[in-house]
Amino acid sequence: MTEYTAPTDDIKFLIDDVLDYYGHYQKYPSYEEATPDMVEMIITECAKFCETELAPLNQSGDKEGCHLKDGKVTTPAGFKEAYQNFVDGGWQGLSHPVEYGGQGLPPSIGLIRTEMLGTANWSWSMYPGLSLGAMDTLIRHGSDSQKNTYLPKLTEGVWSGTMCLTEAQCGSDLGRIRCKAEPQEDGSYSITGSKIFISAGDHDLTENIIHIVLARLPGAPKGTRGISLFMVPKILVNEDSSLGEPNSVSCGALEEKMGIKASSTVLLNFDGARGYLIGEENNGLEYMFTYMNNARLGTAMQGVCSAELAYQISLPYVKERLSMRSLSGKKFPDMDADPIIVHPDVRKMLLTQKAISEGGRAMIYYAGKIVDDMEQCGDEQEREALNDKLGFLTPILKGFLTEVGFESANLGIQVLGGHGYTKEWGLEQIVRDTRVATLYEGTTGIQGLDLLGRKMLMERGKTLKSFANEIMGFCKDHSLISSDPHKLRMHKFIWPLSKAVFNWQRYSLQIASRARKDRDLIGSASVEYLMYSGYITMAYLWAMMAQKANEEIAKKPDNIDFYRAKVRTAEFYFERIFPRIKTLSKTMMAKPRSLMRITSEQF
Amino acid sequence: MTEYTAPTDDIKFLIDDVLDYYGHYQKYPSYEEATPDMVEMIITECAKFCETELAPLNQSGDKEGCHLKDGKVTTPAGFKEAYQNFVDGGWQGLSHPVEYGGQGLPPSIGLIRTEMLGTANWSWSMYPGLSLGAMDTLIRHGSDSQKNTYLPKLTEGVWSGTMCLTEAQCGSDLGRIRCKAEPQEDGSYSITGSKIFISAGDHDLTENIIHIVLARLPGAPKGTRGISLFMVPKILVNEDSSLGEPNSVSCGALEEKMGIKASSTVLLNFDGARGYLIGEENNGLEYMFTYMNNARLGTAMQGVCSAELAYQISLPYVKERLSMRSLSGKKFPDMDADPIIVHPDVRKMLLTQKAISEGGRAMIYYAGKIVDDMEQCGDEQEREALNDKLGFLTPILKGFLTEVGFESANLGIQVLGGHGYTKEWGLEQIVRDTRVATLYEGTTGIQGLDLLGRKMLMERGKTLKSFANEIMGFCKDHSLISSDPHKLRMHKFIWPLSKAVFNWQRYSLQIASRARKDRDLIGSASVEYLMYSGYITMAYLWAMMAQKANEEIAKKPDNIDFYRAKVRTAEFYFERIFPRIKTLSKTMMAKPRSLMRITSEQF
Repeated sequence: MTEYTAPTDDIKFLIDDVLDYYGHYQKYPSYEEATPDMVEMIITECAKFCETELAPLNQSGDKEGCHLKDGKVTTPAGFKEAYQNFVDGGWQGLSHPVEYGGQGLPPSIGLIRTEMLGTANWSWSMYPGLSLGAMDTLIRHGSDSQKNTYLPKLTEGVWSGTMCLTEAQCGSDLGRIRCKAEPQEDGSYSITGSKIFISAGDHDLTENIIHIVLARLPGAPKGTRGISLFMVPKILVNEDSSLGEPNSVSCGALEEKMGIKASSTVLLNFDGARGYLIGEENNGLEYMFTYMNNARLGTAMQGVCSAELAYQISLPYVKERLSMRSLSGKKFPDMDADPIIVHPDVRKMLLTQKAISEGGRAMIYYAGKIVDDMEQCGDEQEREALNDKLGFLTPILKGFLTEVGFESANLGIQVLGGHGYTKEWGLEQIVRDTRVATLYEGTTGIQGLDLLGRKMLMERGKTLKSFANEIMGFCKDHSLISSDPHKLRMHKFIWPLSKAVFNWQRYSLQIASRARKDRDLIGSASVEYLMYSGYITMAYLWAMMAQKANEEIAKKPDNIDFYRAKVRTAEFYFERIFPRIKTLSKTMMAKPRSLMRITSEQF
Repeated sequence: MTEYTAPTDDIKFLIDDVLDYYGHYQKYPSYEEATPDMVEMIITECAKFCETELAPLNQSGDKEGCHLKDGKVTTPAGFKEAYQNFVDGGWQGLSHPVEYGGQGLPPSIGLIRTEMLGTANWSWSMYPGLSLGAMDTLIRHGSDSQKNTYLPKLTEGVWSGTMCLTEAQCGSDLGRIRCKAEPQEDGSYSITGSKIFISAGDHDLTENIIHIVLARLPGAPKGTRGISLFMVPKILVNEDSSLGEPNSVSCGALEEKMGIKASSTVLLNFDGARGYLIGEENNGLEYMFTYMNNARLGTAMQGVCSAELAYQISLPYVKERLSMRSLSGKKFPDMDADPIIVHPDVRKMLLTQKAISEGGRAMIYYAGKIVDDMEQCGDEQEREALNDKLGFLTPILKGFLTEVGFESANLGIQVLGGHGYTKEWGLEQIVRDTRVATLYEGTTGIQGLDLLGRKMLMERGKTLKSFANEIMGFCKDHSLISSDPHKLRMHKFIWPLSKAVFNWQRYSLQIASRARKDRDLIGSASVEYLMYSGYITMAYLWAMMAQKANEEIAKKPDNIDFYRAKVRTAEFYFERIFPRIKTLSKTMMAKPRSLMRITSEQF
């Protein structure tokens, strides 16, 4: 059994010290209930649920997997009971509107819950997780009647939702969707087509499943401009939310996957199923994009979850496992050999996991505040700026954190050597589970194009510039010429960070200028540009954490080790991880020629 | 079913053009049979066997796995028949002495066979693969009687062998082995203890299994100096090689692993089993090291095999799968969308696989010549130099190629997106299978220490210097100041390669000097130093390949595309992969402080 202990101290350090969540909540009357007492209670209770109910089902769920029998999917033993307790605890509607039965807390609190659920048992967490996307879509784009009929049950969690985008012939390229929607006389639509890779597409946890489906109306424009969005319940729903007849939606196959085996991934056949249009015709893809930001933030979290869990399994092992002696002399002369934590390379692997898990969490919690702001912001212009900032950060978080999260999980296997390769320790499962994170909700390649092509070039670097200004402002506040008492301690972070942010803008300009003549540069540079941007964003958050930790250390607190660890992990990040931007800046600026010149036949 | 087509053109390019295997064979009378006709026939026949008999069992073997029942392991369906055909074809003894029934061909030919077997079906190939280690050990250190009794059956392949090193409490740190060997009156030894992670430790492919076991004699010195090597047959053997009574060796458990599921990995219990000393008492570890070089070369091959197979599955997919349009304008306007091979990032992933697979093969085939030379060399001093060179290259090949091989396999999943994550395409299996390669036969960390601590520092950089001189000689021959007609074409390779080789020596000197005061630097720099060395070695081989390909292109051959592809892949390697040394040189030279300062409690 892989155990999980929610990192509540790390979470509190971020929300109390580094990101000042409570000051931020006080700005908004709707968030008045999000007091420190309330939030701490939520964290404690959620931690308990995750540690005692979800973590014990993580390995057993992987081993058993889902079952498909007579067209119905059943989840592994224990999943249903845990889900019922989740519903009873009111966890699903934590940050959803009170009018539909939610608790109305800020989305940033919902993200903390998502993290804990996901680290304890990612596969399980996908069932309520997919619902969030469907709920967000309805809240933003559904009619009042749709909201009233569907949202209370979804918010309670007795129904769940899915997002049905992918078809066999297209995943990233949604313009090529073929699923058909024919208008019916009663105002509904008849939906026909097959959707593949549908997470939580069928299962036995809820009474009903509400599918959000992309499909085409007859005569709709070709490509992405002819896609509409529909709500298709598994079981038809009466206006009073009671269940009616089964709809013509059937589960055609259960995918056999590398990991997330306890999460059902299915092929769904819609055979003239009754669906209801969401919003306006042919506007489906635009609606999907609003959903995408949230879904991608949730997927970015998987990177943090897998880094955190891998670290939690690796750490006790390296303190107990004895092998060889420290090269700088025996550290435990009374013992047969030194524990492997004395070895620099083992420490490097552990610190990488730690830096990525804590740095990644900080990045997501930082974005969580923007999500809150967007929800509450009344000013249209300010809202657009927030939307741009979140839109800029989202592909970075999703693409970068899922890649480095996979790396961290994979280091977990490496730390344990041959033992890590066996099923016993659970590390190989984390690697298999998290491998999907760089694929779904848009591959890393798609995130790279979104960041460089759309968010950077199409916006002419506006958001990059304002984000860079923010980081430079932080650097200035804590640089040697500032009045910060810790300025000397901060120099080792501020100097490389400001240099990198300066170059980030410089390279972006160069790419923009060169891409005008050579469009392939966008594709050739994009993934490296994404990773480059990710390392800089993480460096910013680590500098912020180091700064706050130094401040706390000056106060000589009881738990001084906790804050020292933050500073030392920041030092490690800047010295051993951050230099990856050196290679990235070189390769992303290389001409596309060496990629494009080789012909299809020469491959 | 994952298909496999042996890359015979790539293999022939290396042995004919780049490495001149036939010129090399002609130096040695024992290799007179290794004529081009003979070698080509072997390649063709081996390819046929691998493509038609082994590849079809790769996915089914993974799905079925091995079975343990009543203490006996059975292999997946079809494995036994394929093994029998392998024995009938005389493949096991290809490069083993004629006096024991082998074909006496050079070891370098054996490596080509190992590659093809391993790419077609790595799990299957481990059964005959493990035997090679046992056979080598006997050939080098066994008594005449041991050789005469055991080698003919092993060479034929009707018996197989294992290497029993690891115990529950120690893997890398073999000095802590507890397995006991007590001398018996008849000259044999009674072996007692448990060994874990024994590959091919039990199976149903052969009549007998000969275990090579590390154990301690009563009163043996502590640590590595008190380890002896024993031969312990599963079934006792009479002097005429006929089988006697079963020995007291039992299979206690079958490991459940992330991958290589069709390869049995077991726990073996020796309960006073009869064993026979190999060589002299307390010399076991030294004997193991001679075996290690070969075993590590075989494991390095797994990196090449997985990169090659992942490439072979990725390539047809990217030519067929349609998604989006090329950013530089529609490439296939008549089609619904462009095939994804038009996208720069997809090409980058494919070219990475190609560069690593072909570059890695070249590195191993280059080392194969040294193995041949060592076998044939009569001069003691020359032999030692060869031994040093192979010892220097081995950790680089093993550590570096298994890491980049894993990366390439993993890119295969990425290329296929969500489809890559399903079982159907076989890519996720390659990732799971090859994940073990950076662990067994010494983790990447152990390879790093071997390279930097033992092969570089303890030898005072002697071998590095002579290898660097060799590369510099090549650079000089093909630099602008040489008389090479292709010198202008070679400049883009020669210049970065010579600069890197110069820095390799400079950094090595710096590490040596600083490590005298700070021993932890060895451990903190070692893995990055290993990878750094790997990228340079691969750059050398790519430069050699580009040079030969340019020579061929000048001759205007029919298959000019083949040679152009080599030059373009070399260009890609130098522009997009080789710059990784920039970050590595920065981080490997960083002080160990940021790794060592954080205390055990602060983690």
